[in-house]
Amino acid sequence: MTDSTAAARRYSRDHAQRFQDELFELLRFPSLSADPAHADDVRRTAEWLAEHLRELGAQNVAVMPTAGHPVVYGEWLGAGPDKPTVLVYGHYDVVPAAIEDGWDTPPFDPVVLDGRIYARGATDDKGQLFIHLKAFESCLQTGDGPPVNVKFLLEGEEEVSSPNLRPFIEVNPDLLAADVCIISDSSMPTIDRPAILQSLRGMTYVEVTVEGPHDDLHSGFYGGAVDNPALALVNILSKLHNPDHSIAVPGFYDDVAKLTDTERAEIAKTAMSAEELLAATGTPAPWGEAAYTIRERVSARPTLEINGLLSGWTGPGPKTIIPARAMAKLSSRLVANQDPHKIYELLKEYIESIAPPTVRVSVNLLTTGEPALIDFTIPEMQAAVRAYEKGWGATPTFTRGGGSIPIVADIVSLLNMPVVMMGYGLDTDGLHGTNEHFSIEMFQRGIETAIVYLDELAHLER
Amino acid sequence: MTDSTAAARRYSRDHAQRFQDELFELLRFPSLSADPAHADDVRRTAEWLAEHLRELGAQNVAVMPTAGHPVVYGEWLGAGPDKPTVLVYGHYDVVPAAIEDGWDTPPFDPVVLDGRIYARGATDDKGQLFIHLKAFESCLQTGDGPPVNVKFLLEGEEEVSSPNLRPFIEVNPDLLAADVCIISDSSMPTIDRPAILQSLRGMTYVEVTVEGPHDDLHSGFYGGAVDNPALALVNILSKLHNPDHSIAVPGFYDDVAKLTDTERAEIAKTAMSAEELLAATGTPAPWGEAAYTIRERVSARPTLEINGLLSGWTGPGPKTIIPARAMAKLSSRLVANQDPHKIYELLKEYIESIAPPTVRVSVNLLTTGEPALIDFTIPEMQAAVRAYEKGWGATPTFTRGGGSIPIVADIVSLLNMPVVMMGYGLDTDGLHGTNEHFSIEMFQRGIETAIVYLDELAHLER
Repeated sequence: MTDSTAAARRYSRDHAQRFQDELFELLRFPSLSADPAHADDVRRTAEWLAEHLRELGAQNVAVMPTAGHPVVYGEWLGAGPDKPTVLVYGHYDVVPAAIEDGWDTPPFDPVVLDGRIYARGATDDKGQLFIHLKAFESCLQTGDGPPVNVKFLLEGEEEVSSPNLRPFIEVNPDLLAADVCIISDSSMPTIDRPAILQSLRGMTYVEVTVEGPHDDLHSGFYGGAVDNPALALVNILSKLHNPDHSIAVPGFYDDVAKLTDTERAEIAKTAMSAEELLAATGTPAPWGEAAYTIRERVSARPTLEINGLLSGWTGPGPKTIIPARAMAKLSSRLVANQDPHKIYELLKEYIESIAPPTVRVSVNLLTTGEPALIDFTIPEMQAAVRAYEKGWGATPTFTRGGGSIPIVADIVSLLNMPVVMMGYGLDTDGLHGTNEHFSIEMFQRGIETAIVYLDELAHLER
Repeated sequence: MTDSTAAARRYSRDHAQRFQDELFELLRFPSLSADPAHADDVRRTAEWLAEHLRELGAQNVAVMPTAGHPVVYGEWLGAGPDKPTVLVYGHYDVVPAAIEDGWDTPPFDPVVLDGRIYARGATDDKGQLFIHLKAFESCLQTGDGPPVNVKFLLEGEEEVSSPNLRPFIEVNPDLLAADVCIISDSSMPTIDRPAILQSLRGMTYVEVTVEGPHDDLHSGFYGGAVDNPALALVNILSKLHNPDHSIAVPGFYDDVAKLTDTERAEIAKTAMSAEELLAATGTPAPWGEAAYTIRERVSARPTLEINGLLSGWTGPGPKTIIPARAMAKLSSRLVANQDPHKIYELLKEYIESIAPPTVRVSVNLLTTGEPALIDFTIPEMQAAVRAYEKGWGATPTFTRGGGSIPIVADIVSLLNMPVVMMGYGLDTDGLHGTNEHFSIEMFQRGIETAIVYLDELAHLER
């Protein structure tokens, strides 16, 4: 480790409380990308990040418009053209959260409890993206500054599957040109078992709508002679899976890459036991394809989930109606080499084929995302292993992720660079649920590991 | 027809505009009995009705508390002990309504359009109960006054299946003692085809809850290895019906009275064609048990409907969660001689028997109501036929109702009197849906028919 790196790490420890205070400011923005009512909050979050990058010393900082929420860009090219350039990707948008959902504290009023920061976005992804801003600051304020050039690409639509980031990348290839992309938007099982993500699942997300009567009907007057859209919907949804829990949509598995024995052995290194699954989720029993281990099911196998259901009367007490309509949100997590658009067509075709003539059914695509797979033998991935060993204090494993960061596949293919996914969260951080949190110790270790990784990248053979 | 009756009818026509203005006052109360937030509105409605009864000349008027919403009572015994006493039942509560549901006008701000009053409760049941208040006023202000004694029993919990009215009747048998009960809370197919209800369906209403993980889970991290409560719920609900649309709950049909050929012939007099069903509801095609006509399906056969579904994310855009829970509201319309509590037990037992061990399922009873059947050969029913012929201008048919007025069975058994159900609404009034309305002409004809019926009852052989 160079003296500069040691100095930067020391700086990050000396300024830990201020770093945390600044993160709290970022966490207070309810930057819900899915809800149009929060568009201004998303924009204000972008403006705060841009201002912060400027204060840190980044140049060419801009809040760049897209067809949706803006991208925040900033760069520091002071290491010079002989040094590699790192593109840091992160997202500042979050999924919805409200105290009524069952949070113990208001989700946009961060608090520290038992060494953890509780807030929506604490781990996904505001806390993790902030690690790279603070690593950058720590390098710039000490020694000779960052040993590599750094570019920041911070988006506001990751939680709605980044519909406008691919177009943004397509028109800005020079601006975003770099040697390697770093993303911290993932997690490890425990603090002593860091992980580098090797793959991500893709996604096809649809909304199914079933319509029957033109209005809600009095169930006494028409009950028995009119198909109930809620009943038609549940009948359709009940045919999406086979009794063995595999997916019943014809052709769904056609392009799924079969797991080799070697791959299964690698996945087994991060095995999840039934006990661990039950403890982490509270579910009464494991579920899924018996031929696959739990870890395989949640990372190397595709899924089809019901994410939401809505029909008729859902308030207190009874209301005796036949609902006019029923709605389901469905999403499929995809693995290499499934094509999200092809899966949408298969799903739509299948649902339409099993829909009864007594209702009207529509299947609308909400978002898609490509699955991704990164070769872990490349120098940039191996440098990350060393960064964890020196900066974190443990050797990481390469893992397959069950989640989706749709832009990873796009960065690899459009910008022609490897993506190294060094996640600093814990599997138990509760992201997307209630009481999402982020460990302060992991925030600190993350900053130091990120500092070391810049140093490792600066010394790679080019 | 006596001179008194003719005078009362004339009075009702002369004061039609004021009667309508008063009804508008009643319709402006959002007396939603299902929603605790509207409890004060329900109470204010009761107080308005009590005050109005006092102004009309009723005695012993009281807003009488129950364990839920209050009962409004009032009486006029001026006809003397030699004359029969009529108990008028009506309900002043309504089902929920909001402009956001798709109403063309605010549901609690009544308007007249094309001779119809649009408002929640216009036909069910504020407009219909008000007919009897105005018939009473018209008799009292003309000739010798009402030819029979009159008692009013107006409740505020019909739309939540009258949980507290049976106990109220049980402790007040003397107060409510009468010779016949009149209820106007039903409808006819067209204005020239009046109908007297001969039967009503009962009800068992339950809420099914499926719980899995302790919190909503990120579907990427756990999707594939955890049962999805929404999926478990739809699988359960998809097993409630057989492919022939009959109900799959074992024992469900055990106590259903089989229809005789005579009964089927009577029902056929009010046959509903597929075209009429489609035009009235907007449903794309008829549905139900092939062995029964449409009218039989909606009146003489039991049903099992999904009234509401809720799980996970139902707002705009995607949210990639495995929901922690899923909920369905289910209700069964029952026919003679089904027992609502037995049906609840059968339903609960069946659902629990098909629930998978990967989730926790509960089935909770919300309300019940007994089915009812009235003999149409009795004098009070035949007097109603004559009242329609003289007051309405058409001969009524006896029909079986698909809806539920749970208290009818209780009045028959606890107070030992026949219940004559003379409905003044139209099947197309849209009750329980959006844009509920009530014809002003039917409001007027209803008042005059009610006046004539009192006269017919006064002249029955006793």
